[in-house]
Amino acid sequence: MLNYPLSLNLIFEHVRSIHGDKSVHSLLSNGKIHTYNYTTFCKRVVKLANAICSLGIQQGDRVATFASNTYQHLELFYAIPAAGGVIHPINVRLSSKQQLKIVQQAEDKLFFVDDQYFDRFSELQKEVDTIKSIHFNTDEVHDSARFIHEYEDCFDGVEDICIPDIQDENCALALCYTSGTSSEPKGVVYTHRSVFLHTLAVNQTEVFGITESDVVLPLVPMFHALAWGLPYAAMFVGADIVLHGSDSECVVDLIAETGVTISAGVPTLWGRLLPELQRRKQDVSSLRRIIVGGEQMPSELIEVYENDLGVEVRHAWGMTEMCPTGTFSTLRREHQHLPDTEKIRIKSMQGRPIPGVQIRLVTEEGSILPWDGEAIGEVQVRSPWTTGKYYKSKPSTKYFTTDGWLKTGDIATVNRDGYMQIVDRLKSLIISGGESISTTAIESVLLQHSMVRDVAVLGIPDKQWGERPIAVVALSKNTTEDLSKILTEHLIGEFPKFWMPDAFIAVDEIPKTSVGKTDKNAIMKKLIESE
Amino acid sequence: MLNYPLSLNLIFEHVRSIHGDKSVHSLLSNGKIHTYNYTTFCKRVVKLANAICSLGIQQGDRVATFASNTYQHLELFYAIPAAGGVIHPINVRLSSKQQLKIVQQAEDKLFFVDDQYFDRFSELQKEVDTIKSIHFNTDEVHDSARFIHEYEDCFDGVEDICIPDIQDENCALALCYTSGTSSEPKGVVYTHRSVFLHTLAVNQTEVFGITESDVVLPLVPMFHALAWGLPYAAMFVGADIVLHGSDSECVVDLIAETGVTISAGVPTLWGRLLPELQRRKQDVSSLRRIIVGGEQMPSELIEVYENDLGVEVRHAWGMTEMCPTGTFSTLRREHQHLPDTEKIRIKSMQGRPIPGVQIRLVTEEGSILPWDGEAIGEVQVRSPWTTGKYYKSKPSTKYFTTDGWLKTGDIATVNRDGYMQIVDRLKSLIISGGESISTTAIESVLLQHSMVRDVAVLGIPDKQWGERPIAVVALSKNTTEDLSKILTEHLIGEFPKFWMPDAFIAVDEIPKTSVGKTDKNAIMKKLIESE
Repeated sequence: MLNYPLSLNLIFEHVRSIHGDKSVHSLLSNGKIHTYNYTTFCKRVVKLANAICSLGIQQGDRVATFASNTYQHLELFYAIPAAGGVIHPINVRLSSKQQLKIVQQAEDKLFFVDDQYFDRFSELQKEVDTIKSIHFNTDEVHDSARFIHEYEDCFDGVEDICIPDIQDENCALALCYTSGTSSEPKGVVYTHRSVFLHTLAVNQTEVFGITESDVVLPLVPMFHALAWGLPYAAMFVGADIVLHGSDSECVVDLIAETGVTISAGVPTLWGRLLPELQRRKQDVSSLRRIIVGGEQMPSELIEVYENDLGVEVRHAWGMTEMCPTGTFSTLRREHQHLPDTEKIRIKSMQGRPIPGVQIRLVTEEGSILPWDGEAIGEVQVRSPWTTGKYYKSKPSTKYFTTDGWLKTGDIATVNRDGYMQIVDRLKSLIISGGESISTTAIESVLLQHSMVRDVAVLGIPDKQWGERPIAVVALSKNTTEDLSKILTEHLIGEFPKFWMPDAFIAVDEIPKTSVGKTDKNAIMKKLIESE
Repeated sequence: MLNYPLSLNLIFEHVRSIHGDKSVHSLLSNGKIHTYNYTTFCKRVVKLANAICSLGIQQGDRVATFASNTYQHLELFYAIPAAGGVIHPINVRLSSKQQLKIVQQAEDKLFFVDDQYFDRFSELQKEVDTIKSIHFNTDEVHDSARFIHEYEDCFDGVEDICIPDIQDENCALALCYTSGTSSEPKGVVYTHRSVFLHTLAVNQTEVFGITESDVVLPLVPMFHALAWGLPYAAMFVGADIVLHGSDSECVVDLIAETGVTISAGVPTLWGRLLPELQRRKQDVSSLRRIIVGGEQMPSELIEVYENDLGVEVRHAWGMTEMCPTGTFSTLRREHQHLPDTEKIRIKSMQGRPIPGVQIRLVTEEGSILPWDGEAIGEVQVRSPWTTGKYYKSKPSTKYFTTDGWLKTGDIATVNRDGYMQIVDRLKSLIISGGESISTTAIESVLLQHSMVRDVAVLGIPDKQWGERPIAVVALSKNTTEDLSKILTEHLIGEFPKFWMPDAFIAVDEIPKTSVGKTDKNAIMKKLIESE
């Protein structure tokens, strides 16, 4: 075969050569929609890539973004890798402390900052003196020597020269952090090869299934595993792309105005949007499919979308480590004639591995379990686009098996047809509004407080957010003080506000399992009994 | 990323783990349909792979097949590569002389032979004394020491042990010969990587677009670029697969009986099947799409399929060198509202590059031409699944550019939207019934005859076959003998019967261009005038 590397170039050149007249629609903070076509987009990407090179970015340098879903962010998704850089989209919802740790590890050479996050970014900037940044989406000129020049200046006087081909498909394209299982955020490097392969894989008919006729709105933030790869996948097939900024209030308007056909986001969001979508059913009739992931979507919600709105729900499961798509729940031929309730039950499972991804169920002792819909084990995964190590760390048997599988930490069953159903998590993660909250991270900080002898943080079901954390605390000594106030104040500097437990419940002892581990099942049982 | 190679294993394990209950239907020579599910198929493949290993096949050894589209051939498509061998499906329609040349170059270590080709194979066997072969689809036991044992014996007493993973994605999976531009057949090696990538690429929604609900009938022979990759593509997504043997007479029955939804083949075949499909419209209503390639499909034929039968026609273009898919003609969103005639016109073009394939138009001098629908140049291609050299030959600038593009020899225009329209061939190939006939090869053999001073072989349009060859001959001396009889006898040992020119026309001189090359345009003009 031709010695032809898999890279983002292949996607970019395809978009440029045959999809030039398709559109990027981007909702601005003033409520207007900014639209241009892919020809203009591609020209700007080439100029931007050249500007990034001229700012001294070298092959492999990390370039961070501090941004929501906007056309500038989309340009950076292509321009930074084209310049040889590694795009590092920072989760703007993390605490400053978490962001600082990430930035210190990533050693980002340059920041592109959406001005709506100026205050958050400034906090970071106080700590890391060497940060260079370029700002966009603003009319103000910030008086700081750190601003080399503003974003639009990147396009002035830059030659429209060709971007060189990527020679090594294994070089880094992106650096994405997972908020993960512990207080240490873990970085995952996406290579040009893995992004190209993931893009082909999700564009299979029964995965995203996007066509040239589609108009795609990724509601998942672009800092979450590159918006699940949608910016690359949608543009590769020539679909229009719609970006909603950070304003989910206007989403229904946006769908109606741009004729969105496929969208993707977390169940919490779909729950929140439902009443407005129902009210404006006629206006949003273009919507034909939603891709749902990040947490379990309640089957009632799937049913309403499918049967009332006529929108196909495709339930997905994945992880930042997997680029991120792992499984997808679509019905098989034999399911088409089942009663609706049965169909919805299948659709609310996490689904089957997409072509190219392999999964297996493993016991704590490492035995492989059968796919019988009953045996419960940890899900392990491998694929050509799954990471084999975390950024700046050695491959660890804590996260990876010696025979090359990723330990996902999710506990599941798999039925005979290969449909996976997550039943629990090894990792004590709470998914709230599609965002991860690490219970172990909160626990370890609470334990640092003199009043706390032992603690367990649990996720309890929540109508609006899916799950919310509560803390069960064994105190060092009795107190009459306001436990919630004191412990929240203790936590607030460490974690984002939405991580704060909704309640702090004092108990005498935290129940333990026979091997001395915190028995969260027992705690949960007690909580339910006392309700 | 995990050091995880792209290989056929990924496809095979996916089929085995989540599509076990889907079916292979295979039409036997007795007219019955042989059916089993993928679980049985996979078990047989594992046993067969082990049997092939035990016959002494080593990593990289070529294993030839002499077969039509049957379940045994499908098993070999997976088992030979799983055993580390390289599957080499021989075009059974070639002459014995051509087959001999190919076998001598390929140095096949083992042959799997469909007994319907026993006589053809025996001719070959006379010449290559060392051929070992295993036969299938027969009740007779052939009395020959060369038959180690018959095909079904491979499954007896063989352990159902695991197939080891392919470690090097760049190792060979298949060897496919093109009948090409000259009398020398050229071999193209498909690697595990290229086949995996091609499979993902053609399973994009707007390429083959096969789903788990489909029933796929590849009418293109499996010795033509691995049946365009359909055996891998269809099974990877979990579609049923239907194999018609070599009997295109029963195809309509087969479609009706197995509920075929997608089929693929050359236009000539679709022309031949049309009356029967129209007559039995109700019975074949499951058919929703045909994939057409190998030659230009007449727009009238596309129209009847689309508008009368309600079958979507997807016109494709490719080459053995490209694994083989290059372009696909599907309508864009903006075309949906065009009048039918305009839609058909677009659909009868060769279409746009599929995701991952790049094309360009180049002048004889090497300048890149614009995509304006008017500029005419040679199509050059590159992709991660396009070959960079021919088997057992060095990379040659005759076939490949120094900057890494394949010279296809096809002359085309490309319009602004990226739709390619082939207008001529650099290579003097005639496509007759979907099979290539090399005019230069026939010319060079005719020139060896004492009666022939000069010759030009041309393709003339033919309703049934698309094109048929005729020979225009300048004789060495006048003769009263039967020219057609003498020259056909001279050719018949060298080429297949369907290569024989339909007419031999004696002329005084063969017209030449200014640079002394045969002026086929001038000859064609004269032929038309004299009609």
